[in-house]
Amino acid sequence: MLIADDAAPSRRTPATIRDVALAAGVTVGTASKALNGRGQLRAETRERVRAAADRLEFRPNDLVRSLQRGRTFTVGLLTNDSFGRFTMPLLGGIEDALGAAEILVFLSNLRDDPEREATVITSLLAKQVDGLIVMGRRSDPRPPLPVGRSRLPIVYANSRVTDPTALSLLPDDVQGGRLATEHLLRAGRRHLAHVTGPAHWEAVQHRRDGMAAALAAHGLTLPEERVLCGAWTEAWGYAAVGRLLERDPAVDALFCGSDLIARGALDALREQGRLVPDDVAVVGFDNWEIIAAAARPPLTTVDMNLHDLGQEAARRLLAAVAGEVAAGTIRLPCRLVVRASCGGANLAGSDA
Amino acid sequence: MLIADDAAPSRRTPATIRDVALAAGVTVGTASKALNGRGQLRAETRERVRAAADRLEFRPNDLVRSLQRGRTFTVGLLTNDSFGRFTMPLLGGIEDALGAAEILVFLSNLRDDPEREATVITSLLAKQVDGLIVMGRRSDPRPPLPVGRSRLPIVYANSRVTDPTALSLLPDDVQGGRLATEHLLRAGRRHLAHVTGPAHWEAVQHRRDGMAAALAAHGLTLPEERVLCGAWTEAWGYAAVGRLLERDPAVDALFCGSDLIARGALDALREQGRLVPDDVAVVGFDNWEIIAAAARPPLTTVDMNLHDLGQEAARRLLAAVAGEVAAGTIRLPCRLVVRASCGGANLAGSDA
Repeated sequence: MLIADDAAPSRRTPATIRDVALAAGVTVGTASKALNGRGQLRAETRERVRAAADRLEFRPNDLVRSLQRGRTFTVGLLTNDSFGRFTMPLLGGIEDALGAAEILVFLSNLRDDPEREATVITSLLAKQVDGLIVMGRRSDPRPPLPVGRSRLPIVYANSRVTDPTALSLLPDDVQGGRLATEHLLRAGRRHLAHVTGPAHWEAVQHRRDGMAAALAAHGLTLPEERVLCGAWTEAWGYAAVGRLLERDPAVDALFCGSDLIARGALDALREQGRLVPDDVAVVGFDNWEIIAAAARPPLTTVDMNLHDLGQEAARRLLAAVAGEVAAGTIRLPCRLVVRASCGGANLAGSDA
Repeated sequence: MLIADDAAPSRRTPATIRDVALAAGVTVGTASKALNGRGQLRAETRERVRAAADRLEFRPNDLVRSLQRGRTFTVGLLTNDSFGRFTMPLLGGIEDALGAAEILVFLSNLRDDPEREATVITSLLAKQVDGLIVMGRRSDPRPPLPVGRSRLPIVYANSRVTDPTALSLLPDDVQGGRLATEHLLRAGRRHLAHVTGPAHWEAVQHRRDGMAAALAAHGLTLPEERVLCGAWTEAWGYAAVGRLLERDPAVDALFCGSDLIARGALDALREQGRLVPDDVAVVGFDNWEIIAAAARPPLTTVDMNLHDLGQEAARRLLAAVAGEVAAGTIRLPCRLVVRASCGGANLAGSDA
């Protein structure tokens, strides 16, 4: 435990296996066997060693174990998400999957700075992490992480990557778009519009594709003029709805590409005297709790299951550490969270 | 680097100092001296060793260094903030302060679960972290972290703690409340009200105290009936403003205890036909960018400088690791971020 270079005199030196052996009146070898549950020892001896270890607050040193086993039981998580909106739920899933294996997570925010990325990777490699999970931008696929020849296992989570031999886990945005649309159709809506993010984002294209597919299954189309692409902001949602209602007042349902866009849309609808859900039903995308639950009315929205995605990413990483080779893109299903903006929970039946 | 227990055959063994020495045609001792910049070596030899190290992508193993020096150059960051609202800016500051020292941060979300906390602490201690930074709830002071007799340096950041020998860094909420109020007074407002969070939070009391002090300096009071305590939510901000305007229509300024409360307040003012800032000026607290900047109008608000607080917490932790003993509560200043909800940037002069 932590002796500073210019060691703090007041800090107590932690107990070693030697101290435990001395206190229990056994050899170091016997103490080690007793604590590891190995070897042939009398129950009384084992008990005495354990009691001494407890009394002295002996804690095994993972560094030694790491050098011996060639693994550190640490993983690096690299993000560019400064809001924590994606990082925290992913971290939760990763911790749940790795916690049982007693693996801890180094988190670093790269802030879209390639120089910082290089420095952090050097540090992570020097610390001998067992693997990396990389979160990235969803708009453009990122280049593979520059880890040189280290052959370090890497999983890309909620992140696209240009390297076809890499393993990438993403939410199934097509399925998410279908879920949202089917819910609106089930609510009896037939005149749907889509207000969403920048057109070049793959997620935007996929959500729209899912919407179009669900409409097609009901013999409906999604005309160009009822798809409005813009920014991922409330301001865009607000402006888009103003434009949309002017050119097409018959719209009775909105599928919004994000919860923030949906919040702006709800404001615009309210100010134009359109009742939600009676006149226009609205579905968002993200299930960003603090945004969606506080909407007026509370927002029905698509949840990307980021916790589960993090959990799966960690499981895949453990498999890669164990030597399993995997590549390609895996899409994990979204789920619909029903609140009040489409007319209540009675439509929820078959959405999960 | 990472040889799995059942080693993956395809993974290349990383270069050791032996490989570098062999490739450069020198002894291991010479290679080590050349890479560490120590000893008397010919420039040509040093250069040859470095070239070999580069070519072989040799990376020094921190585990060995850690065992030798009794430090791991790792720090644990413990949080209970599932939204990342506080964690991410604090992490940014911590990374900025520790990055130069090549220290990495283990992040764990304890989720207010004492059992989980105990497990994570055991893991962090086994990994021989050099110290811990603990983020906590601001409502009630938390008990000191149960690290037994390890004497591990700990700094509490944005977190109160019951142990008077602990070191805790907090935003100066009194000063923050004063900043907000002085800004409203400078804007010519004299009939101020306060809509804020739960009355038992220390932060709520401090912000209110700062407001009262700033008013007193101008010969004004803050009557009980113009202080409304409730939840940290938009819904509360909305409801409180409705109540307030009914009982006291002369209110010309609102200081809100959080940006979310301010968002609800802005909605209520708009729907009651009160213009912001012309009729009522509004200041928030948090500078939660995605909430404050998207408000209509964009919200002037108090920023707790969490990035700087994280940076200072990390600096204090490094000092503690080096043996410096410090205790007590340190309050770091907030700053005002001026947007449009008080009448524009022309009042910003002396707020920073």
